[in-house]
Amino acid sequence: MFNIKSFGIIGGDKRQLYCARSIAEDGYSVSICGFEKRDSFNELLELELDQIIEKSDAIILPLPCSRDGKNINAPFSDCGIIIDDKTERLIGNKPVFCGMQNKLPFQCGQVYDYSNREEFAVENAVPTSEGAIEIAMHEYDGTINSSQCLVAGYGRIGRVLADMLAGIGARVTVSARSLKDMAFIRSRGFNAISSQALCGRYDIIFNTVPHMLFDSYTLAKIASGALVVDLASSPGGVDFEAAERLGIKVVHALSLPGKAAPKTSGMIIKNAVYNIIREEQL
Amino acid sequence: MFNIKSFGIIGGDKRQLYCARSIAEDGYSVSICGFEKRDSFNELLELELDQIIEKSDAIILPLPCSRDGKNINAPFSDCGIIIDDKTERLIGNKPVFCGMQNKLPFQCGQVYDYSNREEFAVENAVPTSEGAIEIAMHEYDGTINSSQCLVAGYGRIGRVLADMLAGIGARVTVSARSLKDMAFIRSRGFNAISSQALCGRYDIIFNTVPHMLFDSYTLAKIASGALVVDLASSPGGVDFEAAERLGIKVVHALSLPGKAAPKTSGMIIKNAVYNIIREEQL
Amino acid sequence: MFNIKSFGIIGGDKRQLYCARSIAEDGYSVSICGFEKRDSFNELLELELDQIIEKSDAIILPLPCSRDGKNINAPFSDCGIIIDDKTERLIGNKPVFCGMQNKLPFQCGQVYDYSNREEFAVENAVPTSEGAIEIAMHEYDGTINSSQCLVAGYGRIGRVLADMLAGIGARVTVSARSLKDMAFIRSRGFNAISSQALCGRYDIIFNTVPHMLFDSYTLAKIASGALVVDLASSPGGVDFEAAERLGIKVVHALSLPGKAAPKTSGMIIKNAVYNIIREEQL
Amino acid sequence: MFNIKSFGIIGGDKRQLYCARSIAEDGYSVSICGFEKRDSFNELLELELDQIIEKSDAIILPLPCSRDGKNINAPFSDCGIIIDDKTERLIGNKPVFCGMQNKLPFQCGQVYDYSNREEFAVENAVPTSEGAIEIAMHEYDGTINSSQCLVAGYGRIGRVLADMLAGIGARVTVSARSLKDMAFIRSRGFNAISSQALCGRYDIIFNTVPHMLFDSYTLAKIASGALVVDLASSPGGVDFEAAERLGIKVVHALSLPGKAAPKTSGMIIKNAVYNIIREEQL
Repeated sequence: MFNIKSFGIIGGDKRQLYCARSIAEDGYSVSICGFEKRDSFNELLELELDQIIEKSDAIILPLPCSRDGKNINAPFSDCGIIIDDKTERLIGNKPVFCGMQNKLPFQCGQVYDYSNREEFAVENAVPTSEGAIEIAMHEYDGTINSSQCLVAGYGRIGRVLADMLAGIGARVTVSARSLKDMAFIRSRGFNAISSQALCGRYDIIFNTVPHMLFDSYTLAKIASGALVVDLASSPGGVDFEAAERLGIKVVHALSLPGKAAPKTSGMIIKNAVYNIIREEQL
Repeated sequence: MFNIKSFGIIGGDKRQLYCARSIAEDGYSVSICGFEKRDSFNELLELELDQIIEKSDAIILPLPCSRDGKNINAPFSDCGIIIDDKTERLIGNKPVFCGMQNKLPFQCGQVYDYSNREEFAVENAVPTSEGAIEIAMHEYDGTINSSQCLVAGYGRIGRVLADMLAGIGARVTVSARSLKDMAFIRSRGFNAISSQALCGRYDIIFNTVPHMLFDSYTLAKIASGALVVDLASSPGGVDFEAAERLGIKVVHALSLPGKAAPKTSGMIIKNAVYNIIREEQL
Repeated sequence: MFNIKSFGIIGGDKRQLYCARSIAEDGYSVSICGFEKRDSFNELLELELDQIIEKSDAIILPLPCSRDGKNINAPFSDCGIIIDDKTERLIGNKPVFCGMQNKLPFQCGQVYDYSNREEFAVENAVPTSEGAIEIAMHEYDGTINSSQCLVAGYGRIGRVLADMLAGIGARVTVSARSLKDMAFIRSRGFNAISSQALCGRYDIIFNTVPHMLFDSYTLAKIASGALVVDLASSPGGVDFEAAERLGIKVVHALSLPGKAAPKTSGMIIKNAVYNIIREEQL
Repeated sequence: MFNIKSFGIIGGDKRQLYCARSIAEDGYSVSICGFEKRDSFNELLELELDQIIEKSDAIILPLPCSRDGKNINAPFSDCGIIIDDKTERLIGNKPVFCGMQNKLPFQCGQVYDYSNREEFAVENAVPTSEGAIEIAMHEYDGTINSSQCLVAGYGRIGRVLADMLAGIGARVTVSARSLKDMAFIRSRGFNAISSQALCGRYDIIFNTVPHMLFDSYTLAKIASGALVVDLASSPGGVDFEAAERLGIKVVHALSLPGKAAPKTSGMIIKNAVYNIIREEQL
């Protein structure tokens, strides 16, 4: 179906291994590089950096593709993976699929960022929401069922998370900014409140909004005694110091998809790569 | 809370009566005009056209405000309601709230269209979806529960309708155009298919897409033996002639909110009017 | 799979026709009798009474098998169907499957009542619940979504109906007698109240309890302004006279499965007959 | 409301502390004994054994009330708690509420077992189900959402668990023995299979049936590659050795309510005690 017949997966964690396995199960030739420390997925062929590039029609890098702007992000590797000029020439015009392209530590002809695609973000809302629920189950001494839950924000994560919480039997309130979103929230049978005027009393609060929604005043008003799970990317949306002063437990949960469900996360990367290949007719 | 203390509801059907009652229950002064044929809602004060305009701080017209471009749309009235020059002057700068402003058959200083607001459209997806389900329950000889249902389109109505069908126990497939919407659909546990390549076999098909999705070829392929409920505004999204040739029952269901749930529809109009008043500080 | 290879369906309405069609689709030989007035299902072979009995390994009668204790219940027939002595002898030891065996107007060797089986009753809770919802949608001027609904009784119908109502977005309260059922109700996220002390205010009340739960006192206390759908078999569980005095609309909805979903009802009869055949090794 | 005005909570873990706190919040006098190692709940008054018995109208013991048949079960205590003859006389006719009365290591006039009540068992199905889901989320590398889940058994836990899994977006199959339960399962939109003939392929299997359902044959047939969470009390319903041979991961999860949700478990104990008091008019 694609012109690309062989994939080289370089760097990454368990997500990339699941991604590699799943691509192999689809009948493509797959090899990996940078996974010396893996203790499973032994069916996957590991090659040296130059070998894998030569052998592969396309390269898949992890999310983020680099953490230090120099090495490929490869936590399962014993040593750093650096793409030098010679390796760069080997890559040449081969398609490179990566997460967070702005961190890519080398030049090449065709780069595609799978992490800024809309369906990628939506699909990741599922493992993020499950990860958040797992944290809440672990940290909260009661059950989610019949607890009062607030989901702040009705974007991708808020939408998926609110439905899951209700599916477990929580009493769900969702905050949103627009009247339109509040109408959608009510249509699901949830309470809708305005993000500009948070109110109520909750057992568990999930924040998905990436700015300071839960300042000291709001924490004191609605979060006393609650568990707060902050899902907003750094610096988060909660005044952590104020929370500590108030004795409110806050968990700042980042990068949940890879932690909570590496298999699903790997599939989501694969799907995004396939979608790019289809759209770009690679 | 508002500067407006009295409302005149002119024309419309049961929705406007429920809207009027609900505004009155909120403590405002309300009078109505153009409802001689009503046989309930007797607590509402009916006035002559000029009286009601003089007495009211604001006027609420129905959706659509006019059907013939001349008279106010007033199916419960014995005679036509025409706003002549003298009445126009009486209205002057008083706020007029109406549905489908482009059909307004007179001039005035302040007109607000409640029907083009986003939250209005979302809220109406609820009575539309229930109306569609009522039709399906009435026309289909089996139960919705455990039937194979296709919802074509994942806009406002598709979103609400799919969840309701699943809530009754249907096996739900939703078609959408974007990969993003397909990801949302799958996150709800539904099957997602592409609107460009409808496939499968269904007992009941709900169309929400306002262009010819169900042409004769598609009907023959996926709708044989199915009930089709077309919710798309005229001319709809189904080739009705082809359906008849194929022996496929199609119900073209229009204006469901007012028919299926006039009370809820009246509340939705009230909410939209209140939202305008709040935003415009009237 | 069964020793029985041919079925004769005698009497009944659309349910029996759907039952007949479905058995035929399973590969058995099927003929019908007592359906002169049908205007569809033309693929089904209609035979005279004696012919059908001679030709069939087993007979399926409707629910109830007789209404007057003399004729087979056959609303689609032009004339009465009476099993006289000669016909009785023709039946002999052939298995006869019927609903409400106590009304069977003749003697025979092997009679099986499908209508008193537990799975039959549970499966019928689905079309009953959908029928009740269709009535509520038709009679109530608001939407089920976000309305306050009371389901009185948490037996088979109560269980299925409460979940469906919640699935449409209603605010659901369920009454039950036992603490155990109240715990199950709460586990679904519904409000639980005691059937001995009904309380609250509702938009729509569904009664499933077959004794006088809604007497004049209770109606006045919790049902003022509500729509009441009484699903309890005659004489029902509502004081209809008191309701009329109080201006409360009550719909006494009986025999919903056959009315709301004859196709599903026919499948349920078929399933029960098959289950009997399997258990009895007929 | 009750004649009992003061409660003594002796022994137990965090559940009993939450139970004690909640009773105190209802306005009763509460003291505790056997919690020297607690590091929170400091508002609760701790007394010596004899003191607490003298001071209290009723005694609440944990579940189980004893593990060794000699000491009160008191994991938060520094030393054993033994009820000797003198203490027994102090208790006299005061009501004693305990879990697993057959393990009670002393005699007294009025003993009530809260743990064998039906509503207690149903309410505990909620924390058990959430605990099972937390384990599955933790152990399974994919998401519950869109995974294939089997729930074996449709008793209390099966009923609650299946709904929660579906609420998260899993594809749910439930096995049951009776046709009646299979009908209930299908009415919820789940696949129903027979416990006598387990079939299919699953990502996660939850067993609630307390006998050997998952023998080596069945494991090999339907559980290869799956995570198995066994919720059946010892010895469980899974052949653990066979599972290990087959490389199938099994978690035998016991006593989940106290572990996963001690607060909810404490409330459930309180509710059961209150129900006994009400029924027995203590």
